[in-house]
This record gives sequence, C-alpha cells and structure tokens, in this order.
Amino acid sequence: MTQTIIDIVELLKKYDWISGENIASQLHISRTAIWKHIQQLKKKGYQITAKPNKGYHLLKTPDTITTEEIKQVIKTKHFASSIHHLPIVSSTNDYAKTLAKKGEPEGSLIIADKQTGGRGRKQRKWISPEKGLWFSLILRPKLTPNDAMLTTMCAACAVTKAISELTTLKPRIKWPNDILINGKKVCGILTELSAEIDEITYLIIGIGLNVNNKIPNELKEKSTTLKQEIKKPVDSVLLLSSILSSFEYFYQELNNGNILKIKDTWRSYSSTIGSKVTVSTEKEVVTGVAVNLGEHGELIVKTNLGEKKILTGDISYL
Amino acid sequence: MTQTIIDIVELLKKYDWISGENIASQLHISRTAIWKHIQQLKKKGYQITAKPNKGYHLLKTPDTITTEEIKQVIKTKHFASSIHHLPIVSSTNDYAKTLAKKGEPEGSLIIADKQTGGRGRKQRKWISPEKGLWFSLILRPKLTPNDAMLTTMCAACAVTKAISELTTLKPRIKWPNDILINGKKVCGILTELSAEIDEITYLIIGIGLNVNNKIPNELKEKSTTLKQEIKKPVDSVLLLSSILSSFEYFYQELNNGNILKIKDTWRSYSSTIGSKVTVSTEKEVVTGVAVNLGEHGELIVKTNLGEKKILTGDISYL
Repeated sequence: MTQTIIDIVELLKKYDWISGENIASQLHISRTAIWKHIQQLKKKGYQITAKPNKGYHLLKTPDTITTEEIKQVIKTKHFASSIHHLPIVSSTNDYAKTLAKKGEPEGSLIIADKQTGGRGRKQRKWISPEKGLWFSLILRPKLTPNDAMLTTMCAACAVTKAISELTTLKPRIKWPNDILINGKKVCGILTELSAEIDEITYLIIGIGLNVNNKIPNELKEKSTTLKQEIKKPVDSVLLLSSILSSFEYFYQELNNGNILKIKDTWRSYSSTIGSKVTVSTEKEVVTGVAVNLGEHGELIVKTNLGEKKILTGDISYL
Repeated sequence: MTQTIIDIVELLKKYDWISGENIASQLHISRTAIWKHIQQLKKKGYQITAKPNKGYHLLKTPDTITTEEIKQVIKTKHFASSIHHLPIVSSTNDYAKTLAKKGEPEGSLIIADKQTGGRGRKQRKWISPEKGLWFSLILRPKLTPNDAMLTTMCAACAVTKAISELTTLKPRIKWPNDILINGKKVCGILTELSAEIDEITYLIIGIGLNVNNKIPNELKEKSTTLKQEIKKPVDSVLLLSSILSSFEYFYQELNNGNILKIKDTWRSYSSTIGSKVTVSTEKEVVTGVAVNLGEHGELIVKTNLGEKKILTGDISYL
C-alpha cells in the first residue's frame, strides 16, 4: 500500500473524529483522493463511518493484520524493512526460503494471515488459522552453522520479552525452542538454514505464536493462546512490533559477539535450567537435572553418570 | 542408456574382437539390434571398427566419462544407484540441491563433463574444463549440522585413498577440505547443507578433482593435475569408482558412530596435524602448531597463548 494510505490510517487512529479538510491539509492531498483511499480501506476490512460536520471515524481495524498497520507501528531499523504480507500461504518459512535463495536481504519479514502447511521441528504439523501470528524473518548472520542455535535463542528471548511487556503473563522458554505459559505451549520457533560447513548462507527464523486464534480441542491440554490466558484479545500488531524490536536488539548483540548476554537473558527467561527433566533423543533417553547451556546452546544435563551435553531432543519436566 | 548398451560396452572391453553372433547369443538380442546400438555408441564417442569374420573391436572409449562406463565399473551398494550425467552444467552442487529439494534419494550421483560456474568455499571460483572429475553426491546423514564437517572428512579420506591406490602418488589432506600433491592443490571439496538447528535435511558433497584436464597457467604454481604429476593420463572412471567405494565405506562407519576411525584415517592422510601453520579467519590470524582435531572436526592450534580451537579459516604452512 502507499504511504498516503498508511498516513490516513495513522490519523484515523490518532483522532476520534477527523474532518476530510483536516486530513487534506495534513497530508497535502485532495478530499476526493481521501474519499478514494477510505473506500480502499473499507475493502480491506477497516470499518470507517463518516458524518457531515464531524468527518471520519475509525470504528474497527481489520481482524487480520495489514501491511499498513505494521508499517505504522514498527520501530525497527533493519528488521521488516521489506514486508511480504500474504493472506494465505503453505508455510512462511518455505516462502522465505524461496525469497532468500533469490537474494532477498537480511531482515525481510514474511507474514501470513493463515498457513495451510505450518510446520514445527522435525516436520511436525503446526496448526495456523487466522488471528494468530505466523511469520518468518530472513537473516544472514556471520556465524558458523554450529552457532545457529544462538539465533533461535535471540528469537525466543524476544517473544518472551514482548509478551511479558504487553501483558501480565509470565511466559517461559522451554529448551530448545518452545515458549510456554502456565505450562502450555503458546509459541514455537522453527529455524532452518542453508550453509556451507563454516558459513551460513541464509537462515530463516519462523515464529508461530497463538494470539487470538482458535486451537483445536485435542490440543487444548498442551497448548494455549494469549487471548485464552488473559481472557481478552491482544493487539497482534503491537505484539509483532515489540517482538521485532527486541529480536533486532538481541540479534545485534549476537552479531557484536555478546553471546554471554544472549545466554544470560535466555536463562533468565527459561524454565528448563534447574529443572529435573527427561530428554528423548534419537539414540537414548536421558534423565537428570538441566544445569546449563553448552557453548553452542546445547543442554547440559547432570545425570547419575555425570554431565551429558545434549544437542537435540524433546524434553519433559518431571 | 539401456542395460543392453552397457552390456555391449562390457563385452567389447572384455574381448579384443567379438562377433555379432557372439554378442547376440550372450545378450539374447538380434544382430540388427546390435548394429543399431553400435551406431549409438559411435555417436557417443566410442571408436569401434568392424571386420567381416572377426566382428567388432573397441579402439577407444570416449574422452569424457559415460554413464554406461560408470555403471560397468561401479562397485558401491547405495552410492550412485542413481546417476545424473550432464555434458555441461553451471555447478553440480547447485543441480544436486535442486534434486535434493525434490526428494532425490541419498547416494544419487551428479556428474558433469564440465562446469561453467564451479565453486569452492566462500564462492571462490573453481575452473572445471573437460577431462576433470566434477561431481556431487546427495547425502542425508543422521547428523546435526555441527557434525557436517565429519562427512567432508569422509570424502577427503576417500579421494586420498583412491589416488594412493591407483597411482604412486602420495596425496595429503590440508585442513579443512583441500587435497595436495607435492604441495599443490589437486582436489577441493565443497559441502553445502540444508538443515534445521538439530537435523540435516540434506547435504551435498561436491568434489572437484583435477585429473586429465588442463589448468590455466596462472594457477600452475599452486595447482596441479594427476596427469601432470604422474606424466600420463589416469582412468577417470576407475578413479571415480574407487572414490565412491571408499566414500561409501567411510560414510557407513560415520553413520555407525565410528567417528574416531574417521578422524584417525583423516589424521593419517593429513599434512596439517603436526605442522606449523598460520590460520586466517574472519576475525584474526593465528600462528602456531596444528596439534589435533576438535570434537566436530575443528582445528586445534597450539599458540604461545595456549590452545585455540578454529572452526573455519584458510591455513598456510610455515
């Protein structure tokens, strides 16, 4: 959408009622042009009323996020400088990969209203209907593939921080890449990368966050949404903006080599370290106390037989 | 090509002269069919003469490798069970990636007579004219990306072993992925992977080996070919077959968890361990003695300030 439309939405949000004359003078456009833009916004799901002598009034923003809204709210320097907003897509990660291969720059945001083939780790299905946040970022970190996990940790910290700041909830990170609220999964992060042995070509961080969406009954025991937890809808655009700002900050720290800071933040947000856990890997089941993170983000578990460094697995808390 | 054509080439190689009748009875095909296949082989660059009462005689196989020849010679169980032979390609690794994405199975071989956009590490150009060995294998190892380097090490061991067995040369591996003969580079290995944080989706091993090809004058100080080193041409198909057999063996060992064996073999073939080296990484230049390999194939360098573990870099011997 054009900048003018974005500016009109901003004015409609700023004022309870605003006259066409006022908009026209602030944006240096004709009142006919405003009228045309208002019609366009209505088609996009904005509910706008108009009254003689009072002007325009924004009743309701669309249920789904619009590019205009993202652009208004976003405060990042590089992240989301390019936005690909799709009403429906198989998987934002797959779409992002295709763009990344063609040279799409770092920080590009791919966001969808719903995904038909949303995925989690190990090709597990991720249900992504409307009103959730399903998005991917294209990154090109100067890291070896060994350290890719640190990028996932930045993302997990960002989501946790954003939810904590915008709501009264206390989300906790569960190693390696889930975010839980009151013990139920609210967010998953899927990191995929294309690399040489010693250099990442591109890395896609996919974030699936249950916000105001419905979740199937059979998942309700293990999963939740923000709306369900705080008993009211959450502003998805503000949340997205806050996640991206924090993510950009942590990612910058990572690129500056402040790995300890990322790990410290992660630990402070995590429910895993200090917990008694069972970790199922492809080869074995390890039971013990999760005591720390390893150099590259591995989980260090203290068992009866000594410390074990676990690269990958599914954990359950005991 | 069809199995019949492969069988005909095998017979032509087995006998000095072989009659059409003999071929017909061994392969259960008509003499007209044989004649048609012989014409096809001639078009592919096989020089075949025919004489009354004597039959067919193979004068010369084509300069470039043919799929038929590979299939005759190959002794692997899984590697190269599918062969994609291309007269010309931009990069066998890129071609392999496209196939891998579409689900091409593990072990598929992509081989080209020449590459127009051959690449080494970090997008460095790799000159690949006719008569060299330029090929890629699609692998799907059950490894985390951290351990991808071990697959490259299997490939380096296989190339070194094959050259040592087929010639009197003594190739040595230079960390991380070059093979040198008499101090000059004869082979490079480019490993590229698509992965999640904890799981490799597919991994492409590209091998570029200077066999009977020409190399540009400006590279002659640092590079060599097998032909140049032993002063006679090398049978590329036998060499390829030998590399694939050894690679398959080492790869099996890796998948069985015998990582120590891979590292021991690598060390025995390497000129790096024990050498005084300078390693240039993105961040620093490290000088010291290369003393060992780290857990994931990193280079351990003993400097005046203690041991350094180096994940990536270019080394020069002092």
